[in-house]
Amino acid sequence: MSRYVLGFDFGTLSCRGVALDLENGQMAATAERDYEHGVISGMMHHKPIKLESEWFLQDPDDWIESMIHVSREMLKKGNISPEEVAGIGTDFTSCTLLPVKKDGTPLCKLDRFRDIPNAWPKLWKHHGAQAYAERIEAYAKKNTAWLKEYFGNSVSSEWVYPKMLQVAEENPEVYKEADLFMEAVDYIVMALTGKNSRNSGVLGVNAFWIEGRGYPDPAFAKALNPLLEDAADKKLSGKIVKVGDCVGTVTDQMAQLLGITSRAVVAAGHSDGAVAGCGAGVTKSGSMMLVMGTSTCHQMMYKDVHPFDGVCSIAAGGMVPDLYGYESGQPATGDIFTWFAQNCVPSAYAEKAQKEGKSLLQFLGELAERYKPGESGLVALDWLNGNRSVLSDYNLSGLIVGLTLETRPEEIYRALVEANIFGSRKIIENYENNGVHINDLYAVGGIARKSPWIMQMCADVFHREVIVPQLDNVPARGAAVCAAVALGKTDKKWGCKDFHEASERLVPKDAVVYSPDMENGRRYDKIYAYYEMLHDAFGTKNTFMKGLKELRTETKHHE
Amino acid sequence: MSRYVLGFDFGTLSCRGVALDLENGQMAATAERDYEHGVISGMMHHKPIKLESEWFLQDPDDWIESMIHVSREMLKKGNISPEEVAGIGTDFTSCTLLPVKKDGTPLCKLDRFRDIPNAWPKLWKHHGAQAYAERIEAYAKKNTAWLKEYFGNSVSSEWVYPKMLQVAEENPEVYKEADLFMEAVDYIVMALTGKNSRNSGVLGVNAFWIEGRGYPDPAFAKALNPLLEDAADKKLSGKIVKVGDCVGTVTDQMAQLLGITSRAVVAAGHSDGAVAGCGAGVTKSGSMMLVMGTSTCHQMMYKDVHPFDGVCSIAAGGMVPDLYGYESGQPATGDIFTWFAQNCVPSAYAEKAQKEGKSLLQFLGELAERYKPGESGLVALDWLNGNRSVLSDYNLSGLIVGLTLETRPEEIYRALVEANIFGSRKIIENYENNGVHINDLYAVGGIARKSPWIMQMCADVFHREVIVPQLDNVPARGAAVCAAVALGKTDKKWGCKDFHEASERLVPKDAVVYSPDMENGRRYDKIYAYYEMLHDAFGTKNTFMKGLKELRTETKHHE
Repeated sequence: MSRYVLGFDFGTLSCRGVALDLENGQMAATAERDYEHGVISGMMHHKPIKLESEWFLQDPDDWIESMIHVSREMLKKGNISPEEVAGIGTDFTSCTLLPVKKDGTPLCKLDRFRDIPNAWPKLWKHHGAQAYAERIEAYAKKNTAWLKEYFGNSVSSEWVYPKMLQVAEENPEVYKEADLFMEAVDYIVMALTGKNSRNSGVLGVNAFWIEGRGYPDPAFAKALNPLLEDAADKKLSGKIVKVGDCVGTVTDQMAQLLGITSRAVVAAGHSDGAVAGCGAGVTKSGSMMLVMGTSTCHQMMYKDVHPFDGVCSIAAGGMVPDLYGYESGQPATGDIFTWFAQNCVPSAYAEKAQKEGKSLLQFLGELAERYKPGESGLVALDWLNGNRSVLSDYNLSGLIVGLTLETRPEEIYRALVEANIFGSRKIIENYENNGVHINDLYAVGGIARKSPWIMQMCADVFHREVIVPQLDNVPARGAAVCAAVALGKTDKKWGCKDFHEASERLVPKDAVVYSPDMENGRRYDKIYAYYEMLHDAFGTKNTFMKGLKELRTETKHHE
Repeated sequence: MSRYVLGFDFGTLSCRGVALDLENGQMAATAERDYEHGVISGMMHHKPIKLESEWFLQDPDDWIESMIHVSREMLKKGNISPEEVAGIGTDFTSCTLLPVKKDGTPLCKLDRFRDIPNAWPKLWKHHGAQAYAERIEAYAKKNTAWLKEYFGNSVSSEWVYPKMLQVAEENPEVYKEADLFMEAVDYIVMALTGKNSRNSGVLGVNAFWIEGRGYPDPAFAKALNPLLEDAADKKLSGKIVKVGDCVGTVTDQMAQLLGITSRAVVAAGHSDGAVAGCGAGVTKSGSMMLVMGTSTCHQMMYKDVHPFDGVCSIAAGGMVPDLYGYESGQPATGDIFTWFAQNCVPSAYAEKAQKEGKSLLQFLGELAERYKPGESGLVALDWLNGNRSVLSDYNLSGLIVGLTLETRPEEIYRALVEANIFGSRKIIENYENNGVHINDLYAVGGIARKSPWIMQMCADVFHREVIVPQLDNVPARGAAVCAAVALGKTDKKWGCKDFHEASERLVPKDAVVYSPDMENGRRYDKIYAYYEMLHDAFGTKNTFMKGLKELRTETKHHE
């Protein structure tokens, strides 16, 4: 009996799993496992090798170990037998990229490459390739039309080509030795099935891949660096698959490790942001989803290609197979709040929070919530990890203005939350101003579920309804739904025909709808005007922050 | 035997005392006593009466109580008999202003005025009179020549007239009932002697008083508010005295309370910033002193009047009797660091500091010291309590730019320290650029003595030597030196003829000289260029910060 599918969501710090009951869409079990080495920055984990600022790596063994742990825990918790698992779906942070051998061995696992940071997986938020991104952008702006049409006329340092170019230039021996550069999610699917597949939706976001054309021609890549001439044909080769496709079945070895049978099908991988539509049952053109976690992804489904500046990418089948996925985003949301809680909150607060049995962020949130818009006299820019949309500039940085000797920590926290939502408004307005009309706005992710006051602030700042589906583990759910659709290719009874059917059958429809408070909305408009002034002054026309970063880099190198 | 003089330094939070041995200039004893109610803000201390933002009051009973305590403790510690105390000198934060009855009773001590905040002493950093300062400035700019010549062409909300006008407009009954408005230091001298004296040096800084002319004529004050017509002749009347003058002797009642005899002479009061010259034995034209404590005062001695914008005041005898005292300053230095330590430093740091037996600021300082200029990638504006010099605008606020997810608390702390020193450089350059050449630069105060890394940073940023006299309690010492000079009028043996003689006889000459590191200096120049950009963008031409403050006030009032 093929009653369950497993969804694995590979986040920044952990793997989360959902066992989905195909009979009723209920979660039969969930589990989570932190990566042993988490995010590797500052210093390598296996040896004292210093990493430059803005470098963020991961250990691929951590991914596999956590997946195995999560799978076994779910089967146990849900009392699920190996035979009952009909399929597996996965999603991963993106673009997380690693060089591997043809047989799937990561280069960093070979002795002679272990000590070379460029041989390790570069996490999505690795911004060490910024200089390469700028070079690629300058070249592509001048020499291509497709950058403007499909990629918002800018190149993120988080994407495939900058990360690959960094390897080629800094460690050509690593580039040459790599048979393939894999998106982490495709790497996981390869580890599960032994097959090299590439999700076109993800490629369309991160890898300059365009439906009908494929990758840029070799001449483009060669112009960046001669080594890259083989990028499209070799290093990025693989079978192109779509969201919901079935890549194959689990290898015997992996089936044994996961505690399931090798009959289980494996769905094409997905990105952890774009999978939210599948997970929350949102599959209509004109729907935008804010995926609010460590960062925020703005995922929009839309019927056709309508290019404009400030959108990161327009990918055919980027979220669900039959629509274009528009992607924009903010490279830090929860990460900023966590940074603030860890670095900027006094011990008196920590003690009180502990006494009340609350997390520091929860405690701060309860204090911050009580303020009226404008009452703190603060306004901030949310660029502590750079700006993805609409400026696409990772040399930007965070700013706070309005500090006085009376300023309290919760006021600064609130200003950072407001700034993040103002950044989101900026993105939303960019869509609307460019004629891509948003019919429905959804929010999912940890913040959407856990912080009603932040969601109310979203509604007030956006002047529109924000729908929060009452679902936990939306990405892992989405991965499981992908497995259900992949299963549908062969199993008409338990599998789903497509994502529309999956949405009806497998996704509960409960939601909290936040309606805007007009009075607060008008107050936020006033602060937003200040945010926009800062945004334009420091973001658009100015090299101030870039210069500061250069000074910082210069000084560090000078040591 | 008249061997000792006592100096009392009334700071923001406590009274500090020095018993000076007239035989050798050594400190026979020191003592300190916190004011019971400290700085009153947010809420009155005796009843739940809310205070507006930017209001800072004190309780005059705290001053007297602390002075008595300090006096008795010093006599005990130093084994000094009552007869041995030959004189008393005092200095006080300035301008701290209170309404009193003719007999010296503060209005706030009368039952019917207790609950009116405007009847209480307004501490120097009370900025609630900002709107009044702006009105006075607008009027005086248009209608007088003396504002530009003696007061840097601007009016600080900390001064006598704005604070007095605030009382007159908001509580005319308090204004009318007050026989006198006293600078706190003159109030203390009055409490000691029963005589109403006014130190001309202080008046020349804060009260629009000019040697040879006196106060502005009644027509000027009347134009601000008809009630103020009697300001010069009545409310601010009193015997004009100079630094080092003798006002009289201690009353029997006060002598008994202090534990001394009524033969002790009482010197004219002084301000806690300007008294530094007397205390450190710096009495030459062309010497500038940075008094670095909760705030920073820039005190310059100069041979004549040479007006320019951005200097707060040019007062005849402002520091020592025979030279002009030029005053500029920054309204918060230590206050910013304390604010930061109390509000923005995580518990992990607090725990480590405690384990190492260090104060949080000391611990932070040791971490911050290790960074190179520019390495943090941060730059800040030090306007968390507004800007006194060179912009004279208390609606300005603090700003930090360059924040990333890697920013550490000690980096922010360092940026705030750097910003403060950049603000100081701005002031110093303003003197030099206007032809008032600084021969020697001294620094005194808690920070100068306790934080060598900050003083080295001063030398590097200023590109010049900074001399730090190895003296503690410089202001209280200065007050004691004033007493020695006042004593000199009648006692040629133990007293001093003038401040030059006092400097020779009573002030030890040990000093640490910080020499600029040219390499660091060049690096700081690069960050200073960013500081200047922010300074000009947010300070000179812009209403950004002012607008944010207005929004804040609006919102608070709207509650």
